[in-house]
Amino acid sequence: MREYNVAIVGATGAVGETMREILASRDFPVNKLRLLASAASAGRRFSFKGEELGVESLNDDSFAGIDFALFSAGAAVSREYGPKAAVAGAVVIDNSSAFRMEPQVPLVVPEVNPQDVKSHQGIIANPNCSTIQMVVALKPLHDKYKLKRVVVSTYQAVSGSGKKAISELLEQARAQLGEVLEPEVYPYRIAFNVLPHIDIFMDGGYTKEEVKMIEETRKIMHLPKLAITATAARVPVANGHSESINVEFEEAVDIADIFRLLKSAPGIELVDEPAAERYPMPILATGKDTTMVGRIRRDDSVENGINLWVVSDNLRKGAALNAVQIAELLVTG
Amino acid sequence: MREYNVAIVGATGAVGETMREILASRDFPVNKLRLLASAASAGRRFSFKGEELGVESLNDDSFAGIDFALFSAGAAVSREYGPKAAVAGAVVIDNSSAFRMEPQVPLVVPEVNPQDVKSHQGIIANPNCSTIQMVVALKPLHDKYKLKRVVVSTYQAVSGSGKKAISELLEQARAQLGEVLEPEVYPYRIAFNVLPHIDIFMDGGYTKEEVKMIEETRKIMHLPKLAITATAARVPVANGHSESINVEFEEAVDIADIFRLLKSAPGIELVDEPAAERYPMPILATGKDTTMVGRIRRDDSVENGINLWVVSDNLRKGAALNAVQIAELLVTG
Repeated sequence: MREYNVAIVGATGAVGETMREILASRDFPVNKLRLLASAASAGRRFSFKGEELGVESLNDDSFAGIDFALFSAGAAVSREYGPKAAVAGAVVIDNSSAFRMEPQVPLVVPEVNPQDVKSHQGIIANPNCSTIQMVVALKPLHDKYKLKRVVVSTYQAVSGSGKKAISELLEQARAQLGEVLEPEVYPYRIAFNVLPHIDIFMDGGYTKEEVKMIEETRKIMHLPKLAITATAARVPVANGHSESINVEFEEAVDIADIFRLLKSAPGIELVDEPAAERYPMPILATGKDTTMVGRIRRDDSVENGINLWVVSDNLRKGAALNAVQIAELLVTG
Repeated sequence: MREYNVAIVGATGAVGETMREILASRDFPVNKLRLLASAASAGRRFSFKGEELGVESLNDDSFAGIDFALFSAGAAVSREYGPKAAVAGAVVIDNSSAFRMEPQVPLVVPEVNPQDVKSHQGIIANPNCSTIQMVVALKPLHDKYKLKRVVVSTYQAVSGSGKKAISELLEQARAQLGEVLEPEVYPYRIAFNVLPHIDIFMDGGYTKEEVKMIEETRKIMHLPKLAITATAARVPVANGHSESINVEFEEAVDIADIFRLLKSAPGIELVDEPAAERYPMPILATGKDTTMVGRIRRDDSVENGINLWVVSDNLRKGAALNAVQIAELLVTG
């Protein structure tokens, strides 16, 4: 069986280290593995199948004799060294966004479009992580039914931002992950986890929480036939509910008018200044009486559609404040 | 100005304590405040506007002379004592789910349907927390455009489950919230927070991460006009991306067939046993190669719609594993 010379560019990163581990665990036929990174990481040592390998500084000569160059060091590095590796004879498999939308670069998920690798001209792009898991799920359904519209809300982990982000989360949380704490309130650990399960399960697979949102909205708004579906998930946030809401309207919407309507509506605080990185978040909403609305966007996937991000303090507006406001109505009304 | 006698049922709970705080901070015209709870909590003392109040054990005589009884002690307590309080002359404002869907019980959000309080017969229901913030946001838009369809994905906080859940999260995480740790990777603290912001902001208010999911999916699936919209949020989970995906199909779907298709599809692990509390989660998916799919439900809000919950290890299938699989294709193909 033929073996191949493989280079990992960005070998000391979170993805790079996982690449090395997976090459080993899946017994990829590696003849020689070359670990490449910036000069700052050169000399660090890692083991691969029982062998110690030193990290080499990436340079123009790094790809001599390399069959596969796996890039995961950011788009700038890919743009500079990807073509060089291809010219040197390697097939570049690039994990960055550098080439993904280039028409001549195949963008491949093996379960979905394996045949596309055939047309490569030296570079093949690896899709964005959150895209991959989605298309793996959609593909078999599409084969039978043809997709018409997808509305997705991601709950993404910090590891997608690299090791430093993982450290940041862990340091901030000071979690002692080695210590077992039996969950009592939830069926599983909630710390560093997401539970797509709130209240009990009902017929049809919906949770009672989801059914509540559907039925109560209809009753409150006097819209007994409102078309509405909900997915409720628990996240490791102490206080403040966040909601990603995609809405279609009967009539044509004007986004500027949406902003105006929300800005002047009672109980709402418009928090929507992307350029200033201002948007609703639990740490902003906690202790506040307002319902914060932001991330307002036209949804071009459908007629008259928009997306909203809504955050509020669930102990206040979601419970106690609202009750007191009802009492106030009775007092002043 | 008239003042009122107010009772809080469930006064020692997370919601009950917030009710007390808000009654004070908003200067609700309280003559006498009565704190009611189970016998186990009787005798505990709390301050209200500088006065010390003892918690009393809830019983049939608790509501003599009470004008407003704010219930937040669970549906069973509301069912038993709510009607008694109403008969005793109090207006019950019930935070539980006990009466919300009763036709004669108004379900009220003051910004949305304030007029409905008028028809009460002693009991008014407070909607579910996650419902309230949503309808507050939707109401002004509906007034102008008429809602057609709502797709919502919540990221709910543990406080909705009460104090014990907050302790559970905090104990598990062992976070030292008093200690300031400056964020470096993100613009805001990620621990115990949700950031609706991944990668940079683009025109139209979308983030680059969201645009990537849209464009890359179209390219990978050879569907250049696929109608798709995305909202990407960062949650305090170390590893494993979760996605709530609502899909409409061109053709009529059979849910049993959806299960079968997913069960036999390459790369997918079907994790969907609600009765056994089995569904995809980051702590399950981490370290695995599969894309986990579960929470499969027909979406009755639209023709041919379903909801899915999809979780995968983003460092593996989302990055390194996929790259190696591409290499494998080249080797074996």
